[in-house]
Parts: sequence; C-alpha cells; structure tokens
Amino acid sequence: MLRAAVMPGPMKPLEVRELPDPALEPGSALLETIVSEVCGTDVHLHHGRLSDVPYPIIPGHVSVGRLLEAKDVSVDALGNPLSRDDVVTFYDVHEVCNECWYCLVAKQPNRCPRRRVYGITYSVDDGPLGGWAERIYLKPGVRIVKLPDGVTPDEVIGGGCGLFTGFAAVERSTLAMADTVLVQGAGPVGLSAVAFAALRGAGLVVVIGDPPARLALARSLGADVTLSLDQHPPDEREELIRELTDGRGVDVAIEAAGSPDAIAEGLRLLRDGGTYVVAGHYTDVGSTNVNFHTAVNRKHADIRGQWGTDFAHLVRALKLLSKHRERLRFADIIGSRYGLDEAGRALADVESLRVTKAVIVPSPR
Amino acid sequence: MLRAAVMPGPMKPLEVRELPDPALEPGSALLETIVSEVCGTDVHLHHGRLSDVPYPIIPGHVSVGRLLEAKDVSVDALGNPLSRDDVVTFYDVHEVCNECWYCLVAKQPNRCPRRRVYGITYSVDDGPLGGWAERIYLKPGVRIVKLPDGVTPDEVIGGGCGLFTGFAAVERSTLAMADTVLVQGAGPVGLSAVAFAALRGAGLVVVIGDPPARLALARSLGADVTLSLDQHPPDEREELIRELTDGRGVDVAIEAAGSPDAIAEGLRLLRDGGTYVVAGHYTDVGSTNVNFHTAVNRKHADIRGQWGTDFAHLVRALKLLSKHRERLRFADIIGSRYGLDEAGRALADVESLRVTKAVIVPSPR
Amino acid sequence: MLRAAVMPGPMKPLEVRELPDPALEPGSALLETIVSEVCGTDVHLHHGRLSDVPYPIIPGHVSVGRLLEAKDVSVDALGNPLSRDDVVTFYDVHEVCNECWYCLVAKQPNRCPRRRVYGITYSVDDGPLGGWAERIYLKPGVRIVKLPDGVTPDEVIGGGCGLFTGFAAVERSTLAMADTVLVQGAGPVGLSAVAFAALRGAGLVVVIGDPPARLALARSLGADVTLSLDQHPPDEREELIRELTDGRGVDVAIEAAGSPDAIAEGLRLLRDGGTYVVAGHYTDVGSTNVNFHTAVNRKHADIRGQWGTDFAHLVRALKLLSKHRERLRFADIIGSRYGLDEAGRALADVESLRVTKAVIVPSPR
Amino acid sequence: MLRAAVMPGPMKPLEVRELPDPALEPGSALLETIVSEVCGTDVHLHHGRLSDVPYPIIPGHVSVGRLLEAKDVSVDALGNPLSRDDVVTFYDVHEVCNECWYCLVAKQPNRCPRRRVYGITYSVDDGPLGGWAERIYLKPGVRIVKLPDGVTPDEVIGGGCGLFTGFAAVERSTLAMADTVLVQGAGPVGLSAVAFAALRGAGLVVVIGDPPARLALARSLGADVTLSLDQHPPDEREELIRELTDGRGVDVAIEAAGSPDAIAEGLRLLRDGGTYVVAGHYTDVGSTNVNFHTAVNRKHADIRGQWGTDFAHLVRALKLLSKHRERLRFADIIGSRYGLDEAGRALADVESLRVTKAVIVPSPR
Repeated sequence: MLRAAVMPGPMKPLEVRELPDPALEPGSALLETIVSEVCGTDVHLHHGRLSDVPYPIIPGHVSVGRLLEAKDVSVDALGNPLSRDDVVTFYDVHEVCNECWYCLVAKQPNRCPRRRVYGITYSVDDGPLGGWAERIYLKPGVRIVKLPDGVTPDEVIGGGCGLFTGFAAVERSTLAMADTVLVQGAGPVGLSAVAFAALRGAGLVVVIGDPPARLALARSLGADVTLSLDQHPPDEREELIRELTDGRGVDVAIEAAGSPDAIAEGLRLLRDGGTYVVAGHYTDVGSTNVNFHTAVNRKHADIRGQWGTDFAHLVRALKLLSKHRERLRFADIIGSRYGLDEAGRALADVESLRVTKAVIVPSPR
Repeated sequence: MLRAAVMPGPMKPLEVRELPDPALEPGSALLETIVSEVCGTDVHLHHGRLSDVPYPIIPGHVSVGRLLEAKDVSVDALGNPLSRDDVVTFYDVHEVCNECWYCLVAKQPNRCPRRRVYGITYSVDDGPLGGWAERIYLKPGVRIVKLPDGVTPDEVIGGGCGLFTGFAAVERSTLAMADTVLVQGAGPVGLSAVAFAALRGAGLVVVIGDPPARLALARSLGADVTLSLDQHPPDEREELIRELTDGRGVDVAIEAAGSPDAIAEGLRLLRDGGTYVVAGHYTDVGSTNVNFHTAVNRKHADIRGQWGTDFAHLVRALKLLSKHRERLRFADIIGSRYGLDEAGRALADVESLRVTKAVIVPSPR
Repeated sequence: MLRAAVMPGPMKPLEVRELPDPALEPGSALLETIVSEVCGTDVHLHHGRLSDVPYPIIPGHVSVGRLLEAKDVSVDALGNPLSRDDVVTFYDVHEVCNECWYCLVAKQPNRCPRRRVYGITYSVDDGPLGGWAERIYLKPGVRIVKLPDGVTPDEVIGGGCGLFTGFAAVERSTLAMADTVLVQGAGPVGLSAVAFAALRGAGLVVVIGDPPARLALARSLGADVTLSLDQHPPDEREELIRELTDGRGVDVAIEAAGSPDAIAEGLRLLRDGGTYVVAGHYTDVGSTNVNFHTAVNRKHADIRGQWGTDFAHLVRALKLLSKHRERLRFADIIGSRYGLDEAGRALADVESLRVTKAVIVPSPR
Repeated sequence: MLRAAVMPGPMKPLEVRELPDPALEPGSALLETIVSEVCGTDVHLHHGRLSDVPYPIIPGHVSVGRLLEAKDVSVDALGNPLSRDDVVTFYDVHEVCNECWYCLVAKQPNRCPRRRVYGITYSVDDGPLGGWAERIYLKPGVRIVKLPDGVTPDEVIGGGCGLFTGFAAVERSTLAMADTVLVQGAGPVGLSAVAFAALRGAGLVVVIGDPPARLALARSLGADVTLSLDQHPPDEREELIRELTDGRGVDVAIEAAGSPDAIAEGLRLLRDGGTYVVAGHYTDVGSTNVNFHTAVNRKHADIRGQWGTDFAHLVRALKLLSKHRERLRFADIIGSRYGLDEAGRALADVESLRVTKAVIVPSPR
C-alpha cells in the first residue's frame, strides 16, 4: 500500500488515503517520489476552475523520483540507460496520439485532444497517477528523463511545470537578440520566462509583479529592472518603461500574470510591431475589453497564445538548466516543503502568495 | 489652374476648387488623373475619425494617371523607362525615412513615424496631393510604377488601396497550402483578401459578408463559400463552418469587416493554433470584450494586426494582377463613376454600401 | 495466392511470383491494387543505387486500391468512415516512431531512423508490401486515406510520390507571392513542383528540362516558360532567364533534375538572397564543384535539401488536387500502363524517358 | 593636412601620405581617429583578391573616433544627442539606396548594388574615407553611433567588423535554445560567433580552430569545447563531436574559417536537418567538391550564405556588448597596436596569425 494526498472535489479538504501498489504492465515503471510541485493549477483545481476533472484526484503533475522498478524499459526517452535508483523526472503530458489531425497535419501536439496529464486528468481510482503520493506509476509511453549530471531534484521542481511553460513562452515570442522584454508576473511561469529571456540574449528584461521577494528572485534570475505593482501605479510603470525604450514600448511582452487587467497594460506597453505572448491565462479568469484598432491593427501587433508545452520544451529546458546551474537557480524559488498530510496548507500558502513555489515531500528521510 | 474636389472639414459638404498648377522640382512629376478611388477611409475622413488630418484636404490616395511631365525622372521605381503619356500609378505612402529605428532596426517601414500619404496627410494648400483632382503632383521620392502591359486603370483602381491591404493581410497570415481561410467582410479589402487567398493555394475560402452583390463578386474572385450576414445568423454561420472543417474551425481568418463584433466571431471560428489577421480596424470603431483564456491562450492562437502596407506589396500585387487578369477581375468591383462635382454623392454611396467601389473620374472624355 | 512482380536483385530481370495471401492482424487492412506507380526510385532500386535494400523486393511505393478487408479499422487517417470497396491510397512511409529525438525534439519525422517505406524496405518474404502486386497488405499504423470525392486513381497515381515531393519542395522553398520560380527537371517531381508553385501564387514559373512532351505537360500544369535542355545551351538559358528577371536571376529555384550539373546551373541562375531547394538528389549521382564564395556567401543564398515528405504533405496535396482537378491534370502524365509481367519493360521505358509516368495495373479488368 | 596609411595597390608596400583636411558638407562630420581595425579583408585587399577596388585606398572600415566637428548633425543614428569630443563609431556600409529592388522588394539591403564601404570602395583621392588616418570624414548619411556608456573603444574595435558579422551569422542560423553549435575558425568572426551563440542560449558551443591562444579566447567568450586543428586530425574531431551529440552531429554549424576544406567538414558534422551558415568565404578562396545527395538532400540540410551585415546588426550587437561587458571581452582579442607607419607590419602579423586582431592607432597620445 502507498499513501497519497487526495483532492476529493472542489473546495473539499484534502485527505491522505492509502492505495494499493500498482502491478507493472510492460513498458511501465514505478517511482519513489522524491519531490512533487504545488502549482497554481493545483489551486485552480481546488477551486473547480478546470472542466472535466475526474475528482477525486491525486494532484501533482511535475515530480522527481527514484526509479524503483521498470518493466521492459531499459533507456529513458533520450536513450540514456536506466538503472534502479536513478533520479528521474517524466513529462506529465502523455498519450499525445501522433494519429490525429492536430498531431499529424497541424503539428501542434499541445492541442492533441487525446493528451492526458498526470495529476489532472486521472481519478484516484486509476492508480497513483499524480505526484502527491509516495510512489508514482509511469504508464507505458510516459517519457522518462534522467536528471542531467549534477542537477538536483530541487532545481527541477523549483521551476516545475512553470520552467517548461516559461521556456515555451520565450521560444514562442521569437525575441531577437538585444530586444527589450517585459514579463508580467513573478510567479513560477514569469520567473522562468525571465530566466530564459535573459539566456536567450535579451537586451533588457523588465518585470512587473509582486511581492518584493519574488522580484528579488527575478533579479537573481536575470531581470534588469523590476517594478512592483504595489509601489508603482500603472501610469508610473508606463512612464518608466517608455523611458527605457526611447518612448516606443517593449519589443516583446510575456503575460504570466493570470489577470485580465494585465492584458490591457501589456498591449499598451508593447511597441508598434511588437510581440505579446499570453501564457498566464491557463484558466478562465474573466474577459477584458480591447480596442483592436489601437491595440492590434494600428500597432501591427502580434499576439500569441501559449498553451501548455510539448516534450521538446522539457528536453531543451533541462539541457540549459544543466549548463547554467549557477544562473538558473530555480531551487531558490522553493519557499516551503510539506508532507502529504500538509498538502491542504501548501495549497493555501500558494494561493495567498506566502510562498512562490511549494513542494510536497511524500516520504521525508 | 486645375480643378479638385476638396473636403473642407469633417461633415462639411465637398466643394470643387481651383488650384494653381504646381511648378516641378527636380525628381518630381505631374500626372493627369485618369481615375482615383473612393475608399472607406475617405468616408472615415469625412466623419473626422482620423486624427491629425490637416483639413481642407484633397482626398484620393490611390490613383492612376497619364504622365504629363517629369523633371529629372526617366525611369519608374522598378527601373522601367518612362515617357510622356505613360499610364502609371504611384505608391501613396512616401517619405518613409529609412533613417529611424522602425525603418532600420525593427524593419517595419509601415510604422515609420515620418511616412506621409497622398489624399490624407496634406492640406489643399500643399498642392494637388490627392487624386480627386484633374492633375496630381508627384513629389520627389514618390514611387511611380508603370502599369504592366495589358493592365487597365480600372483593374488597378477597382482594387485600389484595398488591393494592397488584402494582399498584405494574406501575406501576413502565412497561410499554408490547402488551408481553410475565412474572410470577414466583402468590401474592397475583403474581396482582395479572397482573391489572394485563393491565388496563394488555399484549400477553401469562405466569406462572411453582405450585400449579395458583393458576395457574388467574392465568388468570382475565388471564394468557395459565401455566407450572408443577413440570411445566416451567427449560430448558423458557426455550424456551417464547423461542418466544413471537421468541427475544428478555420486555419486562417482575416478580419476585413471593420466592426468589433467581427472580432469575437473570428476568434470563435478559428481553430486551435490558427492565425487571425486583423486588417479591417483601420479606424477606431470601438472596443470589444475578449476572453483571453478561451480565445487566445487555450486556443494557442496567433492574432496579427496588419497596419497599412509597404511598397513591396504594391509591386507584388500588381505583378499577380498582370499575370492573372482573367481571375483578378477587380474592374468588376467598380460600381459607379463620379465627376469631381459628384464626390459628395460618391462618399454617400460608399457609406451606404450602394456601391462597392466608387471611383472619381476628374476629366471625363 | 496473389501474384506480384518481384525484383530479385540489382540488374536482375523482374519475375512474377505467387505469394500466400496474408492473414490480417488487428489494425491492418487488405487492398486490391487498382494501380501502382513506377517511380524513378524503382529504376534506382533496379540499379542497386540504394543501400540496405532487402532484395528480393516487391516494388511500388505509392498505389491506389480498393478496400477488400479491414480488421478493427473503421475510419481512415482523417477520420472518414471506411467501407468495403472504398477507393483509397495510403502513405507509403510508416512506422515513424514518435519516440526518437528526430520525431520529438527536432520535429523532423522525415529523418526518423525507424521509418519504413512500402516497396523499398521490405523483402518479398515480409508479404505483399509493395504495390506491384494484386493485393497489398496494409500493416497496422499505415495511414489510409480515402480518395476525395471525384478524384480518380489516375489523378493520384499520375503524380505518384512525386506529387508529394514536389509539394514538399514548394513548401520548403517558402516562395513569396509573385516570385519567379525556376524548376529544373520535368519528371514527376519537377512537374508537381511546377503545378504547386503556380498554385502557390508564383509570378512566373520557368522550367528547364526535356523531352518536349514533358515540357508541354509542364505548360499545362502552370509553367509560363519552358526551356529545352537540348535546344537551349546553358549560356542561352542563362541569358533568357536574366532577361525575364531584370538581370537578377530567379527568386526561387527547385532542383528536380537528379544531375550534379544542375546544381551549378541552379546556383548561378539564383538571384542574390534567393532560395534553392535540392529535391532531386534522392540517390547518389556523384559530386559537383561549388565555389562557396560566389555561389553561397556573396550571394547570401539559402540552399535547402528536401528529403522525402511527411504525412501532412500527402493530406494537403490531395486536398488541392481535389479542389483544382481541372488544373492539376496529373492523369495526363501517365504515359503507359503495364501488367505485372511487363514490369521490366515499364522500368526500361521510365529509364529511357520514353514515358514520364508508367503505372502498373496488376489486374486489368 | 592629415596623415594616412595608404595601400597603393595589390602587393605594394604601404605608404604614409598627407592629405588635405576635408571641408564639411551639410550632414557630414569629422572624427579624430582613436583606433581602427586591421581585418582579414585588409589582407585580402593587399593581395588584390577583391574586385573593383579603386587603389590607392586608405584601408580601415571599422573605427572608433572622437567627434571633432559636425555640420547640421545634432543626433546620432539612434537619436542620441551628439557633442564635440563624443566617442563614436559609425557603420562602414552606407549609401544603401532604399530605392532599388533589393532594398525595397527583396528587403535585403546587404545586397543593394549601390552600397559603399569605408576603407574599401574609395580611392585616397575621395578623401579620408578609411580609418587608417588621423581623421575620418563621415559623409552625409553615414550612420554615427555613440558608444554606449561604459563601452571602451577597444571593446568595439576588438570585435571590429567581425563583431557584426559573427552576430549576423548567429542570427541567420536561427539556433534554437539548447542547440549544439559548431563554429569553424577562431578569428574575429569565429570568436564573435562563439560569443553570440553562447549569449543566444546555445546548449553547447564547440570551436574548431587554431592557434591555442585563440582557442583560449574562444573559451573565455563562451566556447565549451575547443578542438585544435593541429592536435586533432579530422577523424578525431568527427569522433569527438559525434560523442558530444549522441552520434547525430551538431544542430547548427557556422563557417568562419575561410577555407574550402572547412565546408566539407562542416557539412559532415551537421546533423540531419541542421543549419549551416557560411560566413567566412568573404573572398574567393577556391571551390570544393560537394555531394548534394549525402550532404544536402538526404541530410535535409539548410545552408545559408551570410553576406555582410546591415545596420541593425551593429545596433543590436553594441547593445549586447554594453549589457555583457564582463562576458564579451573583445578588448582581449587585440594582439598589438600599430602606428600609421607600421601598417604594413600590422598586415603581415594578421596574415601570419601572429595576432588575432591588430589595430591601428594613428595618433598615439
């Protein structure tokens, strides 16, 4: 039997339950969970803001674990040999079908209707398919990746799924070398966008967000200028950014704020012909009013939604994490660690912004 | 002296005035106007919807004329020799500076702050710098282009500036071969977008617009399916388009409707990962409400504003017009011809959609 | 038992053999072959110019057939319902793994090392896995596509695999609207490139090739100018093309000639900053000398190899074939039809250029 | 009168001559030269390897100087106010016409036939239009750029024109984050490519070149692995690079070696579907044999020539130089300083690779 923190339904208190250990099918593996993230999405799940969630569920989509057992699996998704006790992560999105029109013709696997996600699309009855559990069952086809040499579980989980989403947002922005980049929001996605924008050769990285501790993290990850929402009212923010950009506005803006108000500000601060990536509207936080003449047409703007990620983002982000460990200090984002029975408190701390990244440690040693 | 139709100010009746013939500077030329367009922008100008317009003005940005005189100009902008009586058009946008940050670093000459436009940015005191006049003065640096062999003035002016805007919108959409394209609006920009989307290798071109005569024009220019706004309510339009696209929505949508309501419909009808070009919001027609979660982020959408055009669009569009005269029957768009003293009526007919494309013929022969 | 034309080994005469009918696995299907192509690759196979070919083989990679039987397969790869006697084609490339680095990270399934191809990578002992047979066994995972309404087997097979390769070459060229395009070679790949370049909005399509009958086909598919290798020596060809391009050379060139000499000519005729797609060097036809200063660096050229295709090319090409049946008259390319026992003669006729496209009709009715 | 080092013709010894000081036209400026580079191109000029050079010339295309005088010029090309004694550089390429087909339609100003270059396309009779002179005359239209705060003349001139060429090569390579990049050659262009590839987010930067001192510079600028041509024979280099890339070869290769032999090696070491930028074949160093089947077609390769640069490259490269002064230590490349009367020796030292970057200091203080 293994213990898991279970979210019984929207707004219901989390419970620790015992589940039977799964029997391994060919192509599957079993991990002992080292650490699993608490992501903003988990807060949304707890509020019931995502549709078609088969509660009760075991949350936790990105996790790092120790390989306990694998059946007919001898290498990871990159061809590296796997052995018992290897420290690995895995790509939470799986069962992307490679058969549908989106996979084959549009080539947008992130919109494949059959994709499933650990910690979100499975009921507890399906087995330990979320990271807030002592062990995680990796179904056949789930892409396992050994942590690169020297990379610690905390460095990966500190970024968590935001690490890949921020990477994808920077990639989708097609920022040119020396561009000025604005990141809206200093949560995990925003911080990752800051880090990768800096690594990508931005000329200046500006962050608008809060609280101060996150802005300090942003600076340590590569932000040149941070503007506190609290201390700088919108007019002042605009003035400061126009000063930094010869009055033009930023070349690239990345929304990682998850608030409709951010949209109007982002579009206003974007220069003519700039690119705006909307990465933070993962759930429905309401609508906003846009004047498509001034904000889009006359501005000759590019606005790009970034939905999720695909496996290549994980591979590339981990490679850079491994190369730039001294700069991509994502372990520093981790604010607090929680046992399985503290998962409810972890959610509350994330929701209140008391911690930037909370992590679940199912079996403290 | 030459006669010109002058717009004295917003909502004031047009008047025919006499102006002195301009003296030619080196690098300049003088055209006898054959035909000049009445564009939706002229209606907007008459309503005072554009800012910084130095009324009184001579409207008419795209025109075709006969070369009367040229001073130190022996070839057109493509190097073709010029002679007296050659039938030429010219690119209304000029004085793009090639010195500013937008021209040199961003490489977006359509956002150069110094660009000027015939028929819009000049006062009548600056001379005959609009096409609703017997003669047009082409300032030094204005790019003259001889009409390709066989192309008639009506074929060019029937498309007018919409010819180039529609071309630019299709180019910016980066539509892939066999894509399904939705064009919203069947005015000159929309009809041009239809024509070039078809020429670009679209798999299916659908138009939503009105009135029926314009939809018939759309079909003759390459639309496969036309949906009347009047006859098909929004739900029915959506249903029909989902049927045509296996339920997914269109790969590419091009907004040429100039109405905020079109935005919500366009985003709804776009497939996940599709591209939406906003080309019809040339003036401020108000704001609209957008849910960036459903319409942009989760949809992984690309939304691209298309502001104006640059000279390359004119060159390329004319080349295709010349090659595909039998398909690009833009002369058929011309609904009515007006003398200078009928310019006010021309505006009214365009505004009421009585004609799709009205043209001014300053000196009927 | 079913009859098949077998290529026992390089340069050995073809033989008709009898094979047992295959038993269907779940996910597989059986076709009655209507028509299968004889492609230039089959000539190369007969000369032993491809490596790792498991002779004896049943050639024929692209085929059209009638669905005889399907096990647990009720829809085609695009979701269309399948019934007995439906006329279908299938994508010859299969077992692209969606697991390797090329599939997942580089996103180049055409370079997946596990991909297999009907008519090339299978021995006759593997079963009827080539089109020169009365029946073809479609292994689980092979992507079946019903012919669009109105499209005939001859229209598909007339283009054959060249239809998709020419499509892919045009896509990879990223030709802009109104560009001048040179196609080198008037075999099936070249003719398809001509057709799709014209459909894609090229301003002028020039072909260099032979014999005259193929050039006539090229004109019917959309070529504006055809230059016979035989009648126009290289200097004259260059002079003519410079005349057509104001001395600059072509914007886009597509090599579909399969001869090293074509490379030097293609690079010479390309304008500065142009794009050259090399699609015709499917087998090793020798090396050629290139001056990378004049032909690449100073020319700021783009040279792009096009290796094979992926499934999206087939889907998109068929959609356009269905839309433009009157223009994409690929059935006209078919020069002659051969029974299974005439397969050797078919190869000889293709090799000698006596026919542009030869097809095998295993069971004439 | 001012002193200048003059190259009288190919292979003729350099001489110091006196020239009259130029009179300033409106829009022009005069610099006191602080430092000017000796570039590989100067060696080529001395060997007579460029065509249409109007010997005798004053070499020196990229220079840094002190503003002595300016006539009707009050701001630099980016709008910064200019004052006497400001330390500035300027873009050596000028008179790009913005009127020709390349400028306007192809949008490739680097191929404008009217572009002129300081230190190359002017005779000494045209005035002090090269940097190997005490003063440099900046003609109207030459784009002046103030050095960003804190950036020293040595940091700019250490990179010299190679700084911008290397930047342009990296931009043209469109390298993705975490890509493995091979740079061939460790001269100024190669070193700049190394630095910007690292800044652009490469996963691994490998250099093949010599001598050891340059490889040490490469490592300090961001190379992860350096391979000496001398110590590692080709087979060993290939083996090492395959080890680093799971056997696939590099994602991106940048040729900055200027040797035909590098081409074959670069294409061999490129992975399937990779991109190869040819930036080092600025002069004709002979042809090389390429098998377009194995190296281009089957490899699905992209080969891109990079000819020169445009002004945006200078702007963006200087912005990054200013931001990353601690990493882009281009001042360290400078091997030796030479007076005007030592210019001949400077050329010899560059040719023999005794120094990586030689600079001319016309008026030592």
